[in-house]
Amino acid sequence: MRRVDLNCDMGESFGAWTMGNDAEMLAIVSSANVACGFHAGDPLVMHRTIDLARQSGVGVGAHPGFLDIWGFGRRPMPAETPDSLEKMLVYQIGAAQAVARSVGHPLRHVKTHGSLGNLAAASAEHAMAVARAIRAVDPALIFVVLPNTETERAGERLGLPLAREVYADRSYDDSGNLTPRSEAGAVIEDASEAVERTLRMLEENAIVSTSGRKIPVRIDSVGLHGDSVHAVALARCLREALDRAGIAVSPLAATLAEPVS
Amino acid sequence: MRRVDLNCDMGESFGAWTMGNDAEMLAIVSSANVACGFHAGDPLVMHRTIDLARQSGVGVGAHPGFLDIWGFGRRPMPAETPDSLEKMLVYQIGAAQAVARSVGHPLRHVKTHGSLGNLAAASAEHAMAVARAIRAVDPALIFVVLPNTETERAGERLGLPLAREVYADRSYDDSGNLTPRSEAGAVIEDASEAVERTLRMLEENAIVSTSGRKIPVRIDSVGLHGDSVHAVALARCLREALDRAGIAVSPLAATLAEPVS
Amino acid sequence: MRRVDLNCDMGESFGAWTMGNDAEMLAIVSSANVACGFHAGDPLVMHRTIDLARQSGVGVGAHPGFLDIWGFGRRPMPAETPDSLEKMLVYQIGAAQAVARSVGHPLRHVKTHGSLGNLAAASAEHAMAVARAIRAVDPALIFVVLPNTETERAGERLGLPLAREVYADRSYDDSGNLTPRSEAGAVIEDASEAVERTLRMLEENAIVSTSGRKIPVRIDSVGLHGDSVHAVALARCLREALDRAGIAVSPLAATLAEPVS
Amino acid sequence: MRRVDLNCDMGESFGAWTMGNDAEMLAIVSSANVACGFHAGDPLVMHRTIDLARQSGVGVGAHPGFLDIWGFGRRPMPAETPDSLEKMLVYQIGAAQAVARSVGHPLRHVKTHGSLGNLAAASAEHAMAVARAIRAVDPALIFVVLPNTETERAGERLGLPLAREVYADRSYDDSGNLTPRSEAGAVIEDASEAVERTLRMLEENAIVSTSGRKIPVRIDSVGLHGDSVHAVALARCLREALDRAGIAVSPLAATLAEPVS
Repeated sequence: MRRVDLNCDMGESFGAWTMGNDAEMLAIVSSANVACGFHAGDPLVMHRTIDLARQSGVGVGAHPGFLDIWGFGRRPMPAETPDSLEKMLVYQIGAAQAVARSVGHPLRHVKTHGSLGNLAAASAEHAMAVARAIRAVDPALIFVVLPNTETERAGERLGLPLAREVYADRSYDDSGNLTPRSEAGAVIEDASEAVERTLRMLEENAIVSTSGRKIPVRIDSVGLHGDSVHAVALARCLREALDRAGIAVSPLAATLAEPVS
Repeated sequence: MRRVDLNCDMGESFGAWTMGNDAEMLAIVSSANVACGFHAGDPLVMHRTIDLARQSGVGVGAHPGFLDIWGFGRRPMPAETPDSLEKMLVYQIGAAQAVARSVGHPLRHVKTHGSLGNLAAASAEHAMAVARAIRAVDPALIFVVLPNTETERAGERLGLPLAREVYADRSYDDSGNLTPRSEAGAVIEDASEAVERTLRMLEENAIVSTSGRKIPVRIDSVGLHGDSVHAVALARCLREALDRAGIAVSPLAATLAEPVS
Repeated sequence: MRRVDLNCDMGESFGAWTMGNDAEMLAIVSSANVACGFHAGDPLVMHRTIDLARQSGVGVGAHPGFLDIWGFGRRPMPAETPDSLEKMLVYQIGAAQAVARSVGHPLRHVKTHGSLGNLAAASAEHAMAVARAIRAVDPALIFVVLPNTETERAGERLGLPLAREVYADRSYDDSGNLTPRSEAGAVIEDASEAVERTLRMLEENAIVSTSGRKIPVRIDSVGLHGDSVHAVALARCLREALDRAGIAVSPLAATLAEPVS
Repeated sequence: MRRVDLNCDMGESFGAWTMGNDAEMLAIVSSANVACGFHAGDPLVMHRTIDLARQSGVGVGAHPGFLDIWGFGRRPMPAETPDSLEKMLVYQIGAAQAVARSVGHPLRHVKTHGSLGNLAAASAEHAMAVARAIRAVDPALIFVVLPNTETERAGERLGLPLAREVYADRSYDDSGNLTPRSEAGAVIEDASEAVERTLRMLEENAIVSTSGRKIPVRIDSVGLHGDSVHAVALARCLREALDRAGIAVSPLAATLAEPVS
């Protein structure tokens, strides 16, 4: 039986502020990327989110970002050095690992957030810093990466377990990269189209670009959003379509254990 | 040979701001309490501090505090609940543990900071929260406590390895508690007097109060400050006096392994 | 025609996080208390909130709080000194005044937030610090106070224009003070009961305690909340009841200009 | 008699951390650029700094920066929009103005900090946002700018009073711009050389480039640093040289009132 993981960012509340639809998404996805207090989240939110994930049978990972609460980790920080980045990530992943252990639901993966993720995807040096940080905390942690990026290459070089993800609601160019958000059609607004494209990519074991080109890639996980009613609805549609298609939604560790069909 | 640990708060710089005389104190003490980013410190400062401690053969511990950078963890937070406190500490100790591991110099102890420390020393429920947090991260971590406080009792109840400390520059009342800072003579300004008192407490295996009363207690560590020229000078005097007296200054783990003389 | 102001805290979003139902409340109230960036709000949120208030014909005031974003200004800070408090408030009120001026909708009042408000209501020295801060920025600013508190007395001593408020959803004891939240019945859950009590207080020009005792007081404003669907519904009920009763809801400046009926 | 202003960044302490040699620099300079709490400073530090400036007869200005305490406003934020920037600056300048007024020493100028300053110097849109923010708070505030930058042009377009500054310890290229720090010789390490160059620029009413080219410009102020013993020593040398040369060091307002010699 074909397996795939569905992952979603969660635990992005902070202090008195709430964000996202974590409870609803936990009924849909199999992996939760938990913010680590630098761009969102705090120890109480992290504990609560990981405990809810545990109760829902959803795997948890660290979702580290830039030290920038006000900017939610979305402000590009081009001057961030690989050396600084590595230390920032060791701290965040270590904190998340301890919280997860205290909940009794061990940390399984790491996925970078926002502008930090963009920087690492494009810069080999920063990607290596991320991979070194993961390895320093726990070399068994699964590194969730976009195919064809520096993050993927860095994970391969350091021999980290990798999970390659596609986005359900984003289109791809002929190189297999996400179409930049600045271009028309980058975000797929129509839920049924998004679901259809995602299923096709899973069947083909390939990214399918807007022009129809197929770029073979192992797809371990599908990235979803939970930040709007619209996003939750798409997630639910995709989950139902996968269930109908007989594709088992299962956490990253189980998905990675499966040989490519 | 009698052994005792000397501990000092370090790594209290933050971003562009520096604080303390870490390099000088590392030549004097045997244990460094490293701020964890909530009241002071940040991942870069933590990494640098722990690495310097490693090079100096000084043991490192986590020094968690309230989430209050502006107030440096000194603002009393009477509404902090034990439940919240426990989660705040798991996060900080976990982060420090990961940073220390990445440096190759494992975390050995935990000592609470500022107003958080005062709260835990006086409140059994908060003290238990601290002890549970330490145990959740690593039950082998040594909990540095003041004798006769709720923190000591909580550590005993959970069976954590304990290190009992006295302060070189503080006077004690007849119950064996620190004289409140609001009272005259609470802080011993004269270095030679502070050194003499400390040596006497180590010889007697007892806290010696201002009135001369002895309260028997195992003393594993002496707490020092490094935040002023004056404080560094006192630390140096004490170190020299211990060396002359044939008392070995050694990190907590080695000190605790020694049977009481 | 009798006039009364309705005020509500607003602009409590922060960075990527939203809070409250500002747009709905702006259609109901006549004065908005705008968070100043220390416990909530930021320059963008403040600008947007004040501009929306301007468009709705709603007066704006500064709503300063403790420097404590994570704790939303709700954490008691018993060690805050009057001197520090005064400077913290001058900064916040000055910032809000500048933002309001840049929007073309001048700042009219000040109301303290959360734990800072509680501290000032109970401590004469802290209340005087608040009043001095307001006077330093602009002695024409209206100071919104609870009757029978130190804040009211401080405002009177410094000759600030005062607006006395009651809460629609809180009960009062026989001294005319709010029943502490820890006691049963402190918060009036039933909207019609809350509306009825408020109307009665306005008719009687008196606080009416739970036991029925009347404590005469000039009531210039009614404090409302907008942080839940329930709270917005109560606000709407009260507004409708006031309209039916022929009591004009008008901003503080207009309300204060009216002689007591 | 020729006049010139000497300006220096001050008030860059934060909470428990101190930075800079404000007391020493206040005896040397005539204008202090006071951090506004976003990249450094806080209401207590601002009050203290402005009060010290008042006692020293030193003029004060707002020194606004990016909302980035950890990064000290030095992290480039390329995604910052002019619209956001304008609001961020209105807030900071307004806060500083209120603090200065409460001290009884009114705010006279504005000088941008760090990466915000670099962005505004290079981007016409961002420079206009800065100029609009100053005008919104108080069009009489003097805008301190580097000659030949977008900030200068924006100030001219909005008719703000401008003060043009040169740096004592920086070299210039043939376009009259600061040599980038990445190039050799950008920073003039030798104090006597820095003093000599500065005097020559003041005599010539021109920026003198490394190659000896003169770019005529009115010089109203010389920017100094106070962040190291070295920097304070240079400042003192320059001050003594100006005194010997009969050039009066006077605050910006007085300096600007003087016709170009």
